[in-house]
Amino acid sequence: MTEDESTSVSPSRRALLGWGGAGLVVGAAAAGGAAALAASRPADDETGSGAVPFHGTHQAGIATPVQGRLHFAAFDVTTEDRAAFVQLLKDWTRAAARMTQGRTVGEGAYGGIPEAPPDDTGEALGLEPSQLTLTVGFGASLFTKFGLDGRRPDALADLPKFVGDQLNPARGGGDLCVQACADDPQVAVHAIRNLARIGFGKVAIRWSQLGFGKTSSTTPDAQTPRNLFGFKDGTSNISGTDTGALDQHVWASGKDGAPWMAGGSYLVARRIRMNIETWDRTPLGEQEDVFGRDKKVGAPAGKTTERATPFLKGMKPTAHVRLAHPDSNGGIRILRRGYSFTDGTDGLGRLDAGLFFLAYQRDPRKGFVPLQRELSRHDALNEYIQHVGSALFAIPPGVRDTHDWWGRTLFDT
Amino acid sequence: MTEDESTSVSPSRRALLGWGGAGLVVGAAAAGGAAALAASRPADDETGSGAVPFHGTHQAGIATPVQGRLHFAAFDVTTEDRAAFVQLLKDWTRAAARMTQGRTVGEGAYGGIPEAPPDDTGEALGLEPSQLTLTVGFGASLFTKFGLDGRRPDALADLPKFVGDQLNPARGGGDLCVQACADDPQVAVHAIRNLARIGFGKVAIRWSQLGFGKTSSTTPDAQTPRNLFGFKDGTSNISGTDTGALDQHVWASGKDGAPWMAGGSYLVARRIRMNIETWDRTPLGEQEDVFGRDKKVGAPAGKTTERATPFLKGMKPTAHVRLAHPDSNGGIRILRRGYSFTDGTDGLGRLDAGLFFLAYQRDPRKGFVPLQRELSRHDALNEYIQHVGSALFAIPPGVRDTHDWWGRTLFDT
Repeated sequence: MTEDESTSVSPSRRALLGWGGAGLVVGAAAAGGAAALAASRPADDETGSGAVPFHGTHQAGIATPVQGRLHFAAFDVTTEDRAAFVQLLKDWTRAAARMTQGRTVGEGAYGGIPEAPPDDTGEALGLEPSQLTLTVGFGASLFTKFGLDGRRPDALADLPKFVGDQLNPARGGGDLCVQACADDPQVAVHAIRNLARIGFGKVAIRWSQLGFGKTSSTTPDAQTPRNLFGFKDGTSNISGTDTGALDQHVWASGKDGAPWMAGGSYLVARRIRMNIETWDRTPLGEQEDVFGRDKKVGAPAGKTTERATPFLKGMKPTAHVRLAHPDSNGGIRILRRGYSFTDGTDGLGRLDAGLFFLAYQRDPRKGFVPLQRELSRHDALNEYIQHVGSALFAIPPGVRDTHDWWGRTLFDT
Repeated sequence: MTEDESTSVSPSRRALLGWGGAGLVVGAAAAGGAAALAASRPADDETGSGAVPFHGTHQAGIATPVQGRLHFAAFDVTTEDRAAFVQLLKDWTRAAARMTQGRTVGEGAYGGIPEAPPDDTGEALGLEPSQLTLTVGFGASLFTKFGLDGRRPDALADLPKFVGDQLNPARGGGDLCVQACADDPQVAVHAIRNLARIGFGKVAIRWSQLGFGKTSSTTPDAQTPRNLFGFKDGTSNISGTDTGALDQHVWASGKDGAPWMAGGSYLVARRIRMNIETWDRTPLGEQEDVFGRDKKVGAPAGKTTERATPFLKGMKPTAHVRLAHPDSNGGIRILRRGYSFTDGTDGLGRLDAGLFFLAYQRDPRKGFVPLQRELSRHDALNEYIQHVGSALFAIPPGVRDTHDWWGRTLFDT
């Protein structure tokens, strides 16, 4: 665990294949096989472009500008051996540090030993880092499994049952989670798959979710994405560069009661099924009343631009924008990072599609819970959606350097 | 059906929102609401870029350079009214011609009537055309439903059962299909969803499949993509610009026995589950023997470059490259356009992932069938895969102009 990535000469995925810049081709040639491939990518394709730094005070993938695609996996721990699990966290950290920088999982030349399985599954060879971030979280059940209930943060209190919840246990919970976000889905899928492979015998995937399009932005000036109801939502999301708002609403503090969580956060994940077919037969005026927004430009009701300050009292009391607005909730703000999903069709031929809602916050008891309590009771949108999966994770602080590892502040004590 | 798209002044999805070039902003302003949005996209973002022409001798989406993402849907027809179904084909053609050019489904200003459902579901508003292609096919059961068995092409003979097939009927078949390919998955999903919406009461989705990464290329000089086993496959795919090979192996001719199919093709779709976890624990040498290729650069066994001519007799008799090569199959060539899929996990925590195989050919009886008969018996890859879904469709010729429609040569007689 002493590799210093910034000076590492181990080849990147692309340099290994001979596509790298001139400097790296030497390294690739040394790794063998680089001369084999006549360059099939443009020479001006910048090596290493699109990598998000892995190390830092906070984990990447929260304040990071939202990438285009998601592969999210919840795992159950299948070992009772704490040391083995800690070793897995170290191995995962090492692999994640490499994959996020566009490198293969293994350190040496890829696949050098014919008698052993390759140290990387290979389907991301030649692909860009694609802004890959990997973010780890711990579910409440993990604390119980390893006798750590005393260190379970109060903020990681089980979510209450909300009005209308139709939760499928198989689609929720989990001892730990990994959120993989990237601009190329193959890069995100490759990352989850390799972490699952490394974890064989210690963890097993409990459920997973692919997201094909982001529904929120953490970049202030970016276009607000549309959800599968065709609406912009979350215009006033917390910006990833607004350190004041992040400190107040997203990052856990050492003074919050769980010192090991300082710099971490809490993630609420909800699989929200949308009744696409019903919605698509709903008149435009009614759709706009439900959201409290104009559909075309996303302007709050009665306004003409998306970012105009909404006149909440001018909206219907059940309008989604009105109910979700901080002014209606004592200033509650959460950082949303959700994705649209489409998982084929159900037994009735209806699209199994919706929003995989992901929200980061400093304390769910002061964030998602009171907000959802209101929304679940009054939101006009409830006629068109169902919450079918739910999970809550403590997101430990970032991995500071190459000697640090995911979860060290919890386990290394 | 007389709209001439090339001269249409109806706004594009993006111009409608005020992001278009200067020329189109006028049109958008006329449509109302364009002034509302402060430009949040770069001004140099070219309007209309990335649209594939819809009209032509052949349907787009076959010889077209393979786009990054897929949403494929098979439909069953729920009406017995032939005229109603023909009207649907016309409505679909009209919508497809617009969506592939980055326009909204409806002709007028989007969503102008509050009392009616919007004429476009809206989630692609503001997105690029993204090279969207929509390709329609007819299953054998459609001919029976509408008393057209006499016009069913001989080439649309039911596929035989192959050794090892584990087909789930719910994942196969269908009266008709739509293949949506685009570089943005939200654009592909939007297209399928709107066609399903337009077809409400006449057709219903039977099954569908999302593909997140292409596994084949039809562009001669492009990098060959990797499948989820981490290998390059299909290096010698038919090129979309090789008109000689297309005429010989892909496009149906009027002399083939079904004159209405001239310029069309036949599509075999197979959902191939990959045993990811087993594969990932297989030694590199064995993986390479299974494919008959080097994993790193994709070179055929014993060679050093991907595009080197394979020495088939030097490979194991069960090697995939050897068995699938035209020289082992009397010159058989099919145009592959498959995609990787990941649909979460199965009940045992294994990734439900694999290859959604799509292959176009002039006559499956001389293409996929003899090829798969050999592969299903001898291919070493069979230990790691299962075919779990299967469908076959006749792909009618292209829509020639704005007066033409999908399936006219079959139904308008």
